[in-house]
Amino acid sequence: MIAPVRIALDAMGGDHGPEVIVSGAALALAQRPELSFTFFGDEAKVAPLVSAHPQLAGVSKISHAPVAVGMDEKPSQALRNGRRTSSMWLAIEAVKKGQADAALSAGNTGALMAMAKICLQMMPYIDRPAIAAIWPTLRGESLVLDVGATIGADAAHLVDLAIMGSAMARIVFGIERPTVGLLNIGTEEVKGIEEIKTASRKLREAVWPNLDYRGFVEGNDIGKGTVDVVVTEGFAGNIALKTAEGTAKQISAYLRQAMSSSLRSKLGYLLARGAFAALEAKMDPRKVNGGVFLGLDGVVIKSHGGSDAIGTARAIEIGYEMVKDELLSKIQETLAGRASATPG
Amino acid sequence: MIAPVRIALDAMGGDHGPEVIVSGAALALAQRPELSFTFFGDEAKVAPLVSAHPQLAGVSKISHAPVAVGMDEKPSQALRNGRRTSSMWLAIEAVKKGQADAALSAGNTGALMAMAKICLQMMPYIDRPAIAAIWPTLRGESLVLDVGATIGADAAHLVDLAIMGSAMARIVFGIERPTVGLLNIGTEEVKGIEEIKTASRKLREAVWPNLDYRGFVEGNDIGKGTVDVVVTEGFAGNIALKTAEGTAKQISAYLRQAMSSSLRSKLGYLLARGAFAALEAKMDPRKVNGGVFLGLDGVVIKSHGGSDAIGTARAIEIGYEMVKDELLSKIQETLAGRASATPG
Repeated sequence: MIAPVRIALDAMGGDHGPEVIVSGAALALAQRPELSFTFFGDEAKVAPLVSAHPQLAGVSKISHAPVAVGMDEKPSQALRNGRRTSSMWLAIEAVKKGQADAALSAGNTGALMAMAKICLQMMPYIDRPAIAAIWPTLRGESLVLDVGATIGADAAHLVDLAIMGSAMARIVFGIERPTVGLLNIGTEEVKGIEEIKTASRKLREAVWPNLDYRGFVEGNDIGKGTVDVVVTEGFAGNIALKTAEGTAKQISAYLRQAMSSSLRSKLGYLLARGAFAALEAKMDPRKVNGGVFLGLDGVVIKSHGGSDAIGTARAIEIGYEMVKDELLSKIQETLAGRASATPG
Repeated sequence: MIAPVRIALDAMGGDHGPEVIVSGAALALAQRPELSFTFFGDEAKVAPLVSAHPQLAGVSKISHAPVAVGMDEKPSQALRNGRRTSSMWLAIEAVKKGQADAALSAGNTGALMAMAKICLQMMPYIDRPAIAAIWPTLRGESLVLDVGATIGADAAHLVDLAIMGSAMARIVFGIERPTVGLLNIGTEEVKGIEEIKTASRKLREAVWPNLDYRGFVEGNDIGKGTVDVVVTEGFAGNIALKTAEGTAKQISAYLRQAMSSSLRSKLGYLLARGAFAALEAKMDPRKVNGGVFLGLDGVVIKSHGGSDAIGTARAIEIGYEMVKDELLSKIQETLAGRASATPG
């Protein structure tokens, strides 16, 4: 018998409301029958949606939440308005109380992080949180963290990011010793990157059973897939993520323009449409939906605000994997591995 | 009679040696007959190359430099080995001495910046240098700065970047009041972005005759072309630039794979090859070659190390435009505009 994995869902978060959250859960359940759900949100809206999926209804509870956090609310506002009452807070709190194994929201990222920090608190030996993103690369996928939780990392935090990221990569990629690189800029002697150099030295000096440190990487190494885990401070990581998204959209737009520019190119497009579909599938952001909050004493997944049911299902599956393969224990294991292996 | 623009070329910089520098100069001259050149480098190698282009030879001097800065030398090493003797130093010094209007090198960026700072020094009222890159967007082109000269900007430096970038944008885009955005991450309340918020307030409070401040932009706004000038601190800017380059290469690789995946897609490719050529032209990095060093008391252009003759010619033309349209005066003009317009 397989142990069930219980997901607490913020049914009210995201741009498309409860419909996609419920449909996403139904899709995820079809893939992972050991999932069960609690939906937090406006019961009058959520209950009929869940009832429409009998299979899902059989493994789901609905818990009424009177407040929904707005997508544009500031974190402090969201806390004032929705602490203990919002669907977002209550989903996180279910993890805190041991009633769920992971919480998922497609809502306001800042509010979700603020609530998760207050409600769940940090895990032992980790000071500050991070958000890890799965990034499609030429070699498959990599993790990039932090993509925006914590601004201005010192060397110790960068090392923590390497530890947390490699633990998550073991789960996502199913490898025992993921390669890790520190994101840096080309010139070695630039002032202001002392923290990155110190972190690099610390990572190199220790022996890590579950982390294969490969040194510095640059921005263009992310897409190449040079390492499994790219570690960077949250501001630069967020800029990198958004810039890559922007570049991908830009090139798609160029390609569309080019393919509709003449009759010949339109015919060519028709002939090659299978290839274009494959290309689109490769660039489909839904496949890599699901930012994982790291460093908290509990599993919290951020689904993209604009996700549809397929993207939501993918984010739920990420949560499932993190629970199933014990993300939190793996992080602690890597931390412990360092303590015994560091010389001196 | 048009005033000549004199360019000092580091003939030894870049991955491909003097050949592409000389051919690039010949191409640029064909476009801009008022250009003249001094080539700094190994005379025995450079002289025959220049002689092969009679038109070019007519407007060129060759000045022997016994040392060439290595592409992998650290800036401090390059200064030790090549101060006053290297082709790179001597090209910059020609600007300092008033013998040239702009210097161009495709060599080691860190060394070039270090030498330029020491030799030319900073311009009045600007404390730290920046590198501005021309970035292709869906709307045309934008400037992004700083892409790696200075790490860890405070609010005053971010304002300086806005001033310098908008002055350069007036020249490159031929508009009197370029729009400017400050690169930021989504969440308003994140700790650590106080400097960016302060810079935003300063930019908003002043009235700028030559700068139209539009507030924060995010990473995905760069490719959209939301503003003419994107201002960011050098570390994040460099990461953004390299990440976008990596993403573009990654998608090109996906596209090549897709187009050769079946006979149908190959036929489609053949039919649409004009469209693919147009797409490639749009993504051609040579078109936007030429990073401009800003803040120095002289015009210095960095050509990409891997540039061919066409890329080199484009970088020379950027230098030409900066001289012709008086970049340094335009920066001072914008600075002065602020002083008189700031309330209080």
